[in-house]
Amino acid sequence: MNTHGTSDFVIIGGVAAGPKTAATLARRLPRASITLFQKEDRLSYATCGMPYFASGDVDSFAELMRLPWGNERNEQFFRDARGFTAIAGAEVTAIDRIHKTVTVQRKGVPGSEEHGYGKLVLATGAHPAPPPFSIEFSPRVRFFTRPDDALEFRKLAQTGQVGSAVIVGAGYIGCELAEAFGGLWGIGTTLIEKEPHVLPATLDTGMAQLVEQELIRQNITLRLGAGVGKIIGREDGAAVHLDGGEVLEADYVVLAVGVRPQVQLACECGLAIGPTGAIAVDEFLRTSDPDIYAGGDCVELRHRLTGEPVYVPLGSLANRHGRVIAENLAGNPTKYPGVLGSYLVKVFDLNVGGVGLNWKKARAYAGKAAVWGTFADRPDYYPESKTITLKMIYDETNGRVLGLQGVGQGDVARRVDVFAGFLQCRATVDTLLDFEPGYAPPYAEAVDPLHHLAGMAQAARRGTVFAGPEDVDQLSRADAVWLDVREPGEQEEYPLALPDVVIIPLDRLRENAGHLPRERKIVIVCQRGSRAYQAAVMLADLGFKDVVVLGGGRAALG
Amino acid sequence: MNTHGTSDFVIIGGVAAGPKTAATLARRLPRASITLFQKEDRLSYATCGMPYFASGDVDSFAELMRLPWGNERNEQFFRDARGFTAIAGAEVTAIDRIHKTVTVQRKGVPGSEEHGYGKLVLATGAHPAPPPFSIEFSPRVRFFTRPDDALEFRKLAQTGQVGSAVIVGAGYIGCELAEAFGGLWGIGTTLIEKEPHVLPATLDTGMAQLVEQELIRQNITLRLGAGVGKIIGREDGAAVHLDGGEVLEADYVVLAVGVRPQVQLACECGLAIGPTGAIAVDEFLRTSDPDIYAGGDCVELRHRLTGEPVYVPLGSLANRHGRVIAENLAGNPTKYPGVLGSYLVKVFDLNVGGVGLNWKKARAYAGKAAVWGTFADRPDYYPESKTITLKMIYDETNGRVLGLQGVGQGDVARRVDVFAGFLQCRATVDTLLDFEPGYAPPYAEAVDPLHHLAGMAQAARRGTVFAGPEDVDQLSRADAVWLDVREPGEQEEYPLALPDVVIIPLDRLRENAGHLPRERKIVIVCQRGSRAYQAAVMLADLGFKDVVVLGGGRAALG
Repeated sequence: MNTHGTSDFVIIGGVAAGPKTAATLARRLPRASITLFQKEDRLSYATCGMPYFASGDVDSFAELMRLPWGNERNEQFFRDARGFTAIAGAEVTAIDRIHKTVTVQRKGVPGSEEHGYGKLVLATGAHPAPPPFSIEFSPRVRFFTRPDDALEFRKLAQTGQVGSAVIVGAGYIGCELAEAFGGLWGIGTTLIEKEPHVLPATLDTGMAQLVEQELIRQNITLRLGAGVGKIIGREDGAAVHLDGGEVLEADYVVLAVGVRPQVQLACECGLAIGPTGAIAVDEFLRTSDPDIYAGGDCVELRHRLTGEPVYVPLGSLANRHGRVIAENLAGNPTKYPGVLGSYLVKVFDLNVGGVGLNWKKARAYAGKAAVWGTFADRPDYYPESKTITLKMIYDETNGRVLGLQGVGQGDVARRVDVFAGFLQCRATVDTLLDFEPGYAPPYAEAVDPLHHLAGMAQAARRGTVFAGPEDVDQLSRADAVWLDVREPGEQEEYPLALPDVVIIPLDRLRENAGHLPRERKIVIVCQRGSRAYQAAVMLADLGFKDVVVLGGGRAALG
Repeated sequence: MNTHGTSDFVIIGGVAAGPKTAATLARRLPRASITLFQKEDRLSYATCGMPYFASGDVDSFAELMRLPWGNERNEQFFRDARGFTAIAGAEVTAIDRIHKTVTVQRKGVPGSEEHGYGKLVLATGAHPAPPPFSIEFSPRVRFFTRPDDALEFRKLAQTGQVGSAVIVGAGYIGCELAEAFGGLWGIGTTLIEKEPHVLPATLDTGMAQLVEQELIRQNITLRLGAGVGKIIGREDGAAVHLDGGEVLEADYVVLAVGVRPQVQLACECGLAIGPTGAIAVDEFLRTSDPDIYAGGDCVELRHRLTGEPVYVPLGSLANRHGRVIAENLAGNPTKYPGVLGSYLVKVFDLNVGGVGLNWKKARAYAGKAAVWGTFADRPDYYPESKTITLKMIYDETNGRVLGLQGVGQGDVARRVDVFAGFLQCRATVDTLLDFEPGYAPPYAEAVDPLHHLAGMAQAARRGTVFAGPEDVDQLSRADAVWLDVREPGEQEEYPLALPDVVIIPLDRLRENAGHLPRERKIVIVCQRGSRAYQAAVMLADLGFKDVVVLGGGRAALG
């Protein structure tokens, strides 16, 4: 073992947080020696682009490693254009915190070497979570976290060797892969999820149903609430044994059951690990050793609203960690404020996203309440107008907004981002009412969806009762009458498949309200939600006491 | 003259603020009598959609009057579904504030009638600004503010009677009409603007140049800085006489020189008018008479940042005024917080928008500073990736952000809306760095443009000097050397048409910096701006003292 050098700063990990830390630091301290070790041969590839390479949307894997002007992000680029030393194929196998050295094993080089550091940064990333069932791996049973996973799949798909596939896990990656497999390649795809609905960590049931209906429409076979017992791989396929005894045969099986932080190095050198199993860091992203920082998919974060420890492995956060760590290392104390959980995911023709707390995660808020709405993302008369369904969660005791979920063919991303800004600024429902978005018909309606949602929250304060798609079953069991206030044409096109539907279009409701049973709960439904609210005001004025508005309307039922 | 009735609430104006006030008020106070008078025959049409009807994007004018479910917004709809009385073709000709009555003249009914009110709302809108030149009107010389303007143009265009057109005024409407005329109909179109650049009220020069280049690319003839002397209409066309003596002949001339608040009624009854010429209101949108409120295109507003009186006629604001007035009338005191000036406009393939103060409007801020950047709106490897150029104005004395301008084929709207939220929450540059947008390749880059802009503002604080496209002429006159750090392929595709360009790609800059003249100002240019910043850090480290980064890069030069 040789001591082969020393650097002011050593960074372990070469994908997102690592290179970002190194590049920012090299700009702040151009004279510092900065060495980055990356275990894999590839440096700084766009992990999040892998599903789009698998799908064929991205033509070659090299595109995921290129800069906008065509250069590859390789050792030479980092040296000449970014001012730091990046060494690929160099695995750090141990950290000696006493002597401040790391042990490095280079691919193809026998033995190992020691490298000294002044400050150390861990950006060791994540690895696939070990599934809670037994697996006999084969080339046809894979995770989807490394470039080779994407490359191998693409090779098989291109040569027509994958007619059927099973994806285990319907989180972001599982849903993206369902589109990649079933879309371009036309692979008969089954998506298995042990929870009762897709995207279970982020979406509430009712919103998830919209995504499930899209997957079914796109010929994906869904198996929800289905536990896997074991998976047996073969040379040319695999058998997925479900808990009930059923066996699904497929040419290809992908395990998309999530990732765990890569903490082995940190553990072995005695750094503190948090309750989520990720590396514990303070608000400056410093570990329990003041000379060691950590960022990216290996660290535990604080939720910005609840203050709870959370584990959120996302490339966008990793980049921000890199900046914060570099600023701190450069002597400019900078806090990382915690995480709001903003996310976006495309599932075939649907845009899906959210930020903040969903209903389950908002459990600590006794005053939590929700409103729903379906909205055109630009005026209905504008040719490219599409709809989105939004659910907003807020605290009715003080009006603070807590979270937003969005699903639809329309522009979900804009609403998620705007809401993320408002959550960051600790906004209330009243703040949303004063929001002044840009407006022109090619981009937006004159009244923004957030104005409508805030207006509903105010109406709820005045006594209007809103329910959402997740409440339909319970309302049906509670013997509610469903009052459909839509026009006849809409009822034909999007029928309400519910018992006990009374049909009275809104503009005839006042004269015909006498026919409604005053002693029963009346749930009002229209297409998107606004007419139902109008009808509820009308019925309240006529003395009806037990009226519920179905937020988001028929459109929110998919 | 008969007294023909009285209402708790009378509303004058039936397009945006009026119906919104009436509908909201009818929900809050279902037992109130509410009467809305509209001078025109049509009620509640989408004025902002008229350019898209003119262009043919919207098929029939009826679509601009329809609700999402197909019903027309007419008197019957407002009565049966919204709970108030709307009367079209009824012009209010006078207001008697002593007796609290309005005088109403109905179309086709001789004489007039008096109608009493408890509270009155003025939503009288705007009318075309009188152009500062003489006009002999004919059917071929028109404004574009009323449905008939759009209908008449469409009829002529459809029957092939418009081969050439002149649009006077390159504000929002002028630019939208340039697309409507030149795009679908292929009309040879000349756009005249007396200011030296398009969209002069909102865009800074450099950003406006990008729009001008797009207009030229789309075969619109631009006449900037061109004053009109007079316009002579004929039965089949018109002659536009420019100040220099030149005469432009065209089959059709549209005057898009802005609008003025419709304040005649307010003036005649003695209500206070503000310095902008619009009706003065307090923060509750109440006029100088406590029984009269006003909203929409007839009122003067306060700018939310400067506190100055401004006149901003926009349909989206009108809708929010309606809500605020209705809440106040219903006994729920609600303030209108003023206006940030968010706007969006589509000009052919470019999305254009902004919010807050531009450079000129930020004149009161001694510490005003700007940064520019060109960004991909999603990763470059993603097939639908497009770029946007952004300019951010902030106050370097305290970091407060003041304004954003955006131009590009990419998603400008999302950034404008997010920035509007941050401006509302009085954010600083540091706030932007902690922004947590949603991220996935189909929607966004891992690092948001706002993070980059905030990072540049921080770099400026550390001493990096940024310039923008509007500074190119001055820098050239100052005998600067232009250092192009792009790759050869980029230089060929997008050449830099400037004197004294030195070409050294970024990754060879350190070894070749010795060839650069240390005594001269060096302006560094790359394609989008990030490499130039990196190069500036490198040159500063090498001891160069007078280095400027061209923000937004070559892409921002169009």
